[in-house]
Amino acid sequence: MASLNQLAINQITNDPVETTALLGMYSKLGVPSISPWRSKLEEHKISTGVFNKLIDDAGIEINGVCFCGSYGSQGKAGRQAQIDDNKKTIDFAVEIGAPSIVTLAGGLLADSKDLDYSRKFNMDALAEILEYARQLGVTLGLEPLHPMYAPDWSVVVSIKEANDWCEQLGEGIGIIVDMYHTWWDVTLEEEIRRAGKHNRIVAVHVSDWLVPTKDILLDRGLMGDGVIDIPKIRQWLEDAGFRGRYEVEIFSNEFWSLDQEKYIELIKDKFQKFV
Amino acid sequence: MASLNQLAINQITNDPVETTALLGMYSKLGVPSISPWRSKLEEHKISTGVFNKLIDDAGIEINGVCFCGSYGSQGKAGRQAQIDDNKKTIDFAVEIGAPSIVTLAGGLLADSKDLDYSRKFNMDALAEILEYARQLGVTLGLEPLHPMYAPDWSVVVSIKEANDWCEQLGEGIGIIVDMYHTWWDVTLEEEIRRAGKHNRIVAVHVSDWLVPTKDILLDRGLMGDGVIDIPKIRQWLEDAGFRGRYEVEIFSNEFWSLDQEKYIELIKDKFQKFV
Repeated sequence: MASLNQLAINQITNDPVETTALLGMYSKLGVPSISPWRSKLEEHKISTGVFNKLIDDAGIEINGVCFCGSYGSQGKAGRQAQIDDNKKTIDFAVEIGAPSIVTLAGGLLADSKDLDYSRKFNMDALAEILEYARQLGVTLGLEPLHPMYAPDWSVVVSIKEANDWCEQLGEGIGIIVDMYHTWWDVTLEEEIRRAGKHNRIVAVHVSDWLVPTKDILLDRGLMGDGVIDIPKIRQWLEDAGFRGRYEVEIFSNEFWSLDQEKYIELIKDKFQKFV
Repeated sequence: MASLNQLAINQITNDPVETTALLGMYSKLGVPSISPWRSKLEEHKISTGVFNKLIDDAGIEINGVCFCGSYGSQGKAGRQAQIDDNKKTIDFAVEIGAPSIVTLAGGLLADSKDLDYSRKFNMDALAEILEYARQLGVTLGLEPLHPMYAPDWSVVVSIKEANDWCEQLGEGIGIIVDMYHTWWDVTLEEEIRRAGKHNRIVAVHVSDWLVPTKDILLDRGLMGDGVIDIPKIRQWLEDAGFRGRYEVEIFSNEFWSLDQEKYIELIKDKFQKFV
């Protein structure tokens, strides 16, 4: 049973709510931590200065920032623009005092089917933004995504690969373990242990895998409603030394259509029962 | 470029067509090989004796049979019924002279989230039907499925795991490499090589991964329409000693709604250009 003071919610989980209103809701309902999206703050025209004040007033902690990634998605010619955009996300994280940034490996290079070359291209771009993050003292959290997102989002699809990438990339980058993306993996326990040995577990995301899953992107489930053995994986994480929050990150057409205050209450309930 | 004499089509690819009519179409259009589904022949009330005559008359070869699996899906109490049903599929394969049977590892045990126990339960049941298959001289082809099917169909999600299972299970079981299920895997080349060393590659399935994928089950693409580097994986298979057919297996609401003769012509065209 997880306690509410271990809860964080990723902003995308309550996608329909404007940022200022969302911080008000979290404060009122006792959600202690948020991971904001840089794109959302821009969409809602909230400067980092204003955001910092809102966060302070609400007494809410920042768990992380979304996100760095998408290196090869615009092709080789788009490389520099992607890197520059990622540097802006790093600047953003510094300005709001976030401890880490969700970092995706990037998918296939645009118009290419070459998975091996795309891995090299993406790792090379990531090395460049990592150098910048190191200078500014922000930790990148490489988050392996489910293999169904390999073409468009992440050629890194397992904690094993994330560990391998971290070893190649060196200091300043760790791993985000999202149970939705990784629960199916026979090496998960062993690779969480390996990540723990190197103090590499930067953050943890929870949700659930629904059966059936009706949409490849927007049908994640609430904890307890699917097939993931969340307490078992949580135990592996704690055995590996993880002491951070469990961040609820749910992309869902169904939940986005609910009254969001009631939905947050539901998240709190499921979090306490099933994480 | 693949030649048409290397083509096989899995019966599910032309799901709307009744079996007798389908064999007529394949004969007329020069499709040299089919993998029938036992359930389809039962649905169409075609005995194995009649099927054998139809196949002979049409001059079509059998590439394999679908399928063995689903061991724990009815819970522990359903174990024996599942095994008995699998034995019927093995009998069916013997009666039609099929060289191998598509064999799925099975998903999570009913009402359980215990992936590790489900793996053990399924492997144990599989060992029992493998013993029966050995007695009858039919080869089982363990087919790893994409991790998105782990809950309901297959806890084995990579060629690496399939190789490991084959080593534990012993003689009489090999591997079916379906590119749709395995293309994303960083260990694919190495594990195909490993499978080849042990003469374990029983069959190969082709289709393509579409971006975006609109349905988790029924939106596979025609070869060349997605992101899978089919010729590269084909080269790995041939380097590993595979000399069999490339079987087109496509579950697709979109293609099932087409005129099926025109669709078969399209398959032949894409097969020659992109496999």
